[in-house]
Amino acid sequence: MPAPARLTAALLLALLPAFAVTAADAAGKPYRSAQQILDASPDSVWRKLDPDRTLYMDLDTGRVVIELAPQFAPEHVGNIRTLAHEHFWDGTSIYRAQDNFVVQFGDVDGEDPAKAKSLGSAKTHLPAEFNRSAKGLDFQKLPDSDGWAKEVGFVDGFPVGRTSPDGTAWLAHCYGTLGAGRNNADDSSIGAELYVTIGQSPRQLDDNITVVGRVVKGMELLSTIKRGPEPMGFYTDPAQRTPIKSIRLASDVPVAERTPLELLRTDSQTFREVAESKRNRVDDFYKRPAGHIDLCNVPLPVRTPKD
Amino acid sequence: MPAPARLTAALLLALLPAFAVTAADAAGKPYRSAQQILDASPDSVWRKLDPDRTLYMDLDTGRVVIELAPQFAPEHVGNIRTLAHEHFWDGTSIYRAQDNFVVQFGDVDGEDPAKAKSLGSAKTHLPAEFNRSAKGLDFQKLPDSDGWAKEVGFVDGFPVGRTSPDGTAWLAHCYGTLGAGRNNADDSSIGAELYVTIGQSPRQLDDNITVVGRVVKGMELLSTIKRGPEPMGFYTDPAQRTPIKSIRLASDVPVAERTPLELLRTDSQTFREVAESKRNRVDDFYKRPAGHIDLCNVPLPVRTPKD
Repeated sequence: MPAPARLTAALLLALLPAFAVTAADAAGKPYRSAQQILDASPDSVWRKLDPDRTLYMDLDTGRVVIELAPQFAPEHVGNIRTLAHEHFWDGTSIYRAQDNFVVQFGDVDGEDPAKAKSLGSAKTHLPAEFNRSAKGLDFQKLPDSDGWAKEVGFVDGFPVGRTSPDGTAWLAHCYGTLGAGRNNADDSSIGAELYVTIGQSPRQLDDNITVVGRVVKGMELLSTIKRGPEPMGFYTDPAQRTPIKSIRLASDVPVAERTPLELLRTDSQTFREVAESKRNRVDDFYKRPAGHIDLCNVPLPVRTPKD
Repeated sequence: MPAPARLTAALLLALLPAFAVTAADAAGKPYRSAQQILDASPDSVWRKLDPDRTLYMDLDTGRVVIELAPQFAPEHVGNIRTLAHEHFWDGTSIYRAQDNFVVQFGDVDGEDPAKAKSLGSAKTHLPAEFNRSAKGLDFQKLPDSDGWAKEVGFVDGFPVGRTSPDGTAWLAHCYGTLGAGRNNADDSSIGAELYVTIGQSPRQLDDNITVVGRVVKGMELLSTIKRGPEPMGFYTDPAQRTPIKSIRLASDVPVAERTPLELLRTDSQTFREVAESKRNRVDDFYKRPAGHIDLCNVPLPVRTPKD
């Protein structure tokens, strides 16, 4: 004892980057894991985050890095840039954490005229930006579809659903999606109260709410926040809220204090190969490759530049 | 100020149980939220957990309640019952937490013959139980399919995929699924090292690993565990592991110390109505009902009995 059957801890679940691969795909081409494909990728398939559309949410536990999507929600992203620039969120909190759903943050007193923080020069009303025209988008279609959208794929690094090339397109709710909280009216969000999804992708929200971006680093700081009471996770004890030190645009932060990151270009052959590698896993662990991948199971690789 | 647009905190994301519903579905029948359907359900559609196939994982933070699935993995569940009965996991730890994937627990020294805990009278080798014959299962098919399985639905409260009524069926990896860690060999799991999924459903593991049950209460204790280092989340500092006080069969626990729970029967009309209510949300919040639901987005309601 132990029998070989106990050799499970380190090798289990086959996500080892250096996983020994002996299998080959049907065409006889050696199978490569996603990590092997990424390790061999040229620098040209990686892009730097644009500091003008990058948010840093600084918590006591570290930094959450968010990429904004002005091409899908220009009005909301504009307002969010104003709010960040004017320090609206500094000293606010994450005041809701609902398991397998969202964390939500902003001014917990936003509903109370006597206590609400000033919105400064941000707009107090915006149009709903649930979707946009699909025309002109560089849409990288996934081979598989799902029941939530006619077509699914990627645009500029974001998971997207669309009705057709000439129809409408919207940002999908996957793990790490940043959305603008709203009331029942579709135009009741202004980007001051935001949420990030932390569980199974709530795709039912797609095209029902304005999505403004996604977390590209630091999800583990949000996903591990103590949950508030059921059913909705709003803390009853204010002491349980997570303080937000600041939310700033990267371009407002001195260069030396920025977090350098590169994202894999979703219009690259490398990205297509990574998705296919996850779609059909042909290695020593998987006995039955799925031959399918859901939009929200496709990894969106991020790396720290070498220098 | 604030403008009505700021009234977002409490009403956002439309999961309020007492949500005021004025809309009606296409047939003119008033729409009811899932919570309204549950509140009006008869006691007969609820079932008590069977203490002989319920595990209590007691942590310093509270109790995780797990329902085992012997109808899908009889050999593994048999071994798990033996291991629990003989206190195998008491004093072990959760030694891995990978964000958006799994927490994993058991004997971290299981690979080291000199340190490994005794397996007692548990078996040291089991057959793989990735799937079983679909025949004889009371399969409640969902109206929608997905790309991971020909058909998806529920059996005895568990999310299940199957090839056909006469083919094979397997437990699907949704949020809270409990699986048996294994090495590359399909028959290398014995149920001593276990994992629970804590993020987007990793359906690519379906029919590739032996699933043994699911968490029915206490997921928030597992999902908030501090993540280990990337890429796989195994802690390098043993102090970061989460101690497991004990894992016991409910039937081995005095009745007064048990956690009474009732689960909605997935073969009930109430369950079908709840799934349909989530599938097509017709309320004041949702502007575009999805007309679809993924297997892992269907809620599996649990309640505490009234007396």
